[in-house]
Amino acid sequence: MTENSIIVIFGATGDLARRKLYPALEELVEKKLVSGDTIFLGVGRKYHPDEEFRKEIPELLKERFFYQQINTTDPGDYIKLKNRIDKLDIEYASGGNIVFYLAVPPSMHRSIIEGIGETGLNIEADGTPESKGRGWKRIVVEKPFGNSWKAALELNKFIHTYFSEKQVYRIDHYLGKETVQNIMAFRFANGIFEPLWNRNYISHLEITASESIGIESRGSYYDSAGAMRDMVQNHLLQLAAVAAMEPPPFFTPDAVRTETLKVFQALRRYSPDEIISNMILGQYVDSTIRGESVPGYRNEKDVKPDSRTETYAALRIFIDNWRWGGVPIYLRTGKRLPTRVTEIVVHFRETPHKLFKGKGDSCCQNKLILRIQPDEGVLLTFGMKQPGSGFEITNRDMDFKYSDLGEFKIPDAYERLLYDVMTGDSTLFTRADSVEECWKFIDPFISCRDNDSRVIIYGYPAGTWGPAEADTFISESGKGWRSPCKNLTEAGNYCEL
Amino acid sequence: MTENSIIVIFGATGDLARRKLYPALEELVEKKLVSGDTIFLGVGRKYHPDEEFRKEIPELLKERFFYQQINTTDPGDYIKLKNRIDKLDIEYASGGNIVFYLAVPPSMHRSIIEGIGETGLNIEADGTPESKGRGWKRIVVEKPFGNSWKAALELNKFIHTYFSEKQVYRIDHYLGKETVQNIMAFRFANGIFEPLWNRNYISHLEITASESIGIESRGSYYDSAGAMRDMVQNHLLQLAAVAAMEPPPFFTPDAVRTETLKVFQALRRYSPDEIISNMILGQYVDSTIRGESVPGYRNEKDVKPDSRTETYAALRIFIDNWRWGGVPIYLRTGKRLPTRVTEIVVHFRETPHKLFKGKGDSCCQNKLILRIQPDEGVLLTFGMKQPGSGFEITNRDMDFKYSDLGEFKIPDAYERLLYDVMTGDSTLFTRADSVEECWKFIDPFISCRDNDSRVIIYGYPAGTWGPAEADTFISESGKGWRSPCKNLTEAGNYCEL
Repeated sequence: MTENSIIVIFGATGDLARRKLYPALEELVEKKLVSGDTIFLGVGRKYHPDEEFRKEIPELLKERFFYQQINTTDPGDYIKLKNRIDKLDIEYASGGNIVFYLAVPPSMHRSIIEGIGETGLNIEADGTPESKGRGWKRIVVEKPFGNSWKAALELNKFIHTYFSEKQVYRIDHYLGKETVQNIMAFRFANGIFEPLWNRNYISHLEITASESIGIESRGSYYDSAGAMRDMVQNHLLQLAAVAAMEPPPFFTPDAVRTETLKVFQALRRYSPDEIISNMILGQYVDSTIRGESVPGYRNEKDVKPDSRTETYAALRIFIDNWRWGGVPIYLRTGKRLPTRVTEIVVHFRETPHKLFKGKGDSCCQNKLILRIQPDEGVLLTFGMKQPGSGFEITNRDMDFKYSDLGEFKIPDAYERLLYDVMTGDSTLFTRADSVEECWKFIDPFISCRDNDSRVIIYGYPAGTWGPAEADTFISESGKGWRSPCKNLTEAGNYCEL
Repeated sequence: MTENSIIVIFGATGDLARRKLYPALEELVEKKLVSGDTIFLGVGRKYHPDEEFRKEIPELLKERFFYQQINTTDPGDYIKLKNRIDKLDIEYASGGNIVFYLAVPPSMHRSIIEGIGETGLNIEADGTPESKGRGWKRIVVEKPFGNSWKAALELNKFIHTYFSEKQVYRIDHYLGKETVQNIMAFRFANGIFEPLWNRNYISHLEITASESIGIESRGSYYDSAGAMRDMVQNHLLQLAAVAAMEPPPFFTPDAVRTETLKVFQALRRYSPDEIISNMILGQYVDSTIRGESVPGYRNEKDVKPDSRTETYAALRIFIDNWRWGGVPIYLRTGKRLPTRVTEIVVHFRETPHKLFKGKGDSCCQNKLILRIQPDEGVLLTFGMKQPGSGFEITNRDMDFKYSDLGEFKIPDAYERLLYDVMTGDSTLFTRADSVEECWKFIDPFISCRDNDSRVIIYGYPAGTWGPAEADTFISESGKGWRSPCKNLTEAGNYCEL
């Protein structure tokens, strides 16, 4: 149960707020995880009376939802905002506890942070009788957090002029996913996986985050970002960190985040030559998917017709430490791939001794699939005796699926993350040093793409698994990419574990 | 595909032949695994014309089934038998290849072996032009193989006067079970289990072979045997060996059997005092099962009313080698237990560090269940995050069931074993040295039961899981016996994995 507080949502009329935040808050209220006197204050550019705005708010939140118009670049409007908050604070006994949720484009981050800070809305109680602040103040910043190492450093510095790191919650919603958190549980609450979880037993890791959709209406953002900034720098590196981190000494926010930081710090840095041979970029081209013609990336709205922005990226990276030394980690992500699926595949080494004959190459090499979405679960491929005479080995699966839990609905990532913000648990949020380290790692790849003519942007037909070059690339591991879908058909694109 | 041969079945009218051997042979013929000219010669005490005997033989075997009457103690009858075999051999071009299957009580073993040997039916081709024999000769001996170390030694010595060890196939039908063979595949065709398969990661093993039936009409045999001789000396020790053996250098009969022998040799030998504290024996007493009154063991037909023969045995044994040093292995078997189930439970150690809170004691300790029968399969218990807020750990299962194979029917143990005899593969048969070593290990327990007044035979009501003392006994491992059945109900006794 959370403490009384005011949840201030900047971007209250925006897409993220409507699609993710309000449903998540409603769930939390329905599950009675939120203190009954918690109130919500939507903040937006347009004028709406509370009553009118409430019409668009889920039923369970309506009663406690308020709206405040603001011009985010007008300092005077932050005084108005402060007055409104102070009034609500007294009326609803919020104790001065405030969450500021920045569900707005990155371009607005600075002015809002400054506006909040200059009115003193950022000041927490400091435990002294002379304290200028009351309660706690937390600020939630959505991705993208900067678009380069330099930008991230500057943004952190700017935030830290008004907020201590402890008050800052940088969202990477992948970390809010039940299945991503479960990777930690799977690794550290079982005695049987961790002893195998290293270079002695693992041949390589494969992390896929594919999307079937294109860039939709986000052409202008996407064309300046690309898959490397949009997916790899944050989500894929975070997944790699959760899969690769050392067990932390405690399950506290800083202990956990120090371990993920250590993974980022250990990522092998590449020379431009090495980047050329460890990165495959692609762009989807015109195609027909299930009978419907689909425009190529360069024909999408707000995309430059000669754009070199990648909609597909595959990387081979290494973590240079004792656990992972020499184990390649293959990352891939893309738009307009055959389906939406995110999973981590742990490829174990072959048995050191082939005692039995196997059917084909696949014998005797175990795979563990941690499926993040959809058809959430865990699948372990193992060799068993082909029933009948002889001793042929055949591969079979054991699996656990969340859908087996029957009664249970997997909570949305935002539900978990909002709850954690309200209870002050920053374990699943990206710390300043981590976000900087990830950009520091990614920058050279992007710079190479922009400046090194050897970087080819391969075309791939929309609806396919990306450039064929990415297949060659991973085949050095002795295996191709795992085909993630058992049952992907022309009729649909739901990808069963 | 087998070579042409004559399968001579002593005890052709007996229970084993009818219930197991004929159906198994029929399956093999149906699957076209048996050479088309293979013929079967039933041998028995009573007179039956071929045609009449064939009436009781499965359809697919009829055509090639013959019958020979014999008085097994009359040397003259073995001459007749030889003549019959010689005639069939020529007629069906069997090449002198003969399997002698002794599906008869142990009391008849010697006279039959001697009878065969004295007529020269045991002599194989030796590769020289002067060879007195043609083809190969194999002899299959059913359990029990002796009833003590001394008896087994003598029986082996006697067999070896006529047959070389290579010709002898001692049946332990548990080794013919698909699921038992799969233990070897599971361990040695997967890179991920063997590294965990030792004292560093395993806290203890549990091997259960329970039966729901009583002793049925076998009172006079059973009362002289008991669970230790009937189940532990052979089946349970064989299961322990398959679970505990080192990986053999090759998958050849002698390489595999040398590894199982090494397990038997490494079994810790107990003083009488140690036996007292490492063995629990029981006898079922009168009870009511599902409304039906069931007589206690001492009230069964052909059982002495003051019998001290155990119908239940639980043992704690140790394998004193580097892999298993200090890991207790709990064996239990019994008649009139709640259900028929055979399984091996590998209890892994707890995680060395409890990072998360678990629900109850069961958190963070993995179990692997190798189910031999029924509902054959493999089940792995692991900890995962309880979905929702927080980081509570809950236990879930991953499993593989043979029934998932749909199309597939698990072959009966005898089908596999008969095929192996016919193809000359003795991997799944007990070698002379092993059977002797097992008796050598078991003898002191039985002697203690017979001569040490401290050995209590605990009564347990028919239909229960045996004496409560066996629960205390295993609780020293920190766990009780695994409750093997998810769904055991009053209505039936099928035990789901």
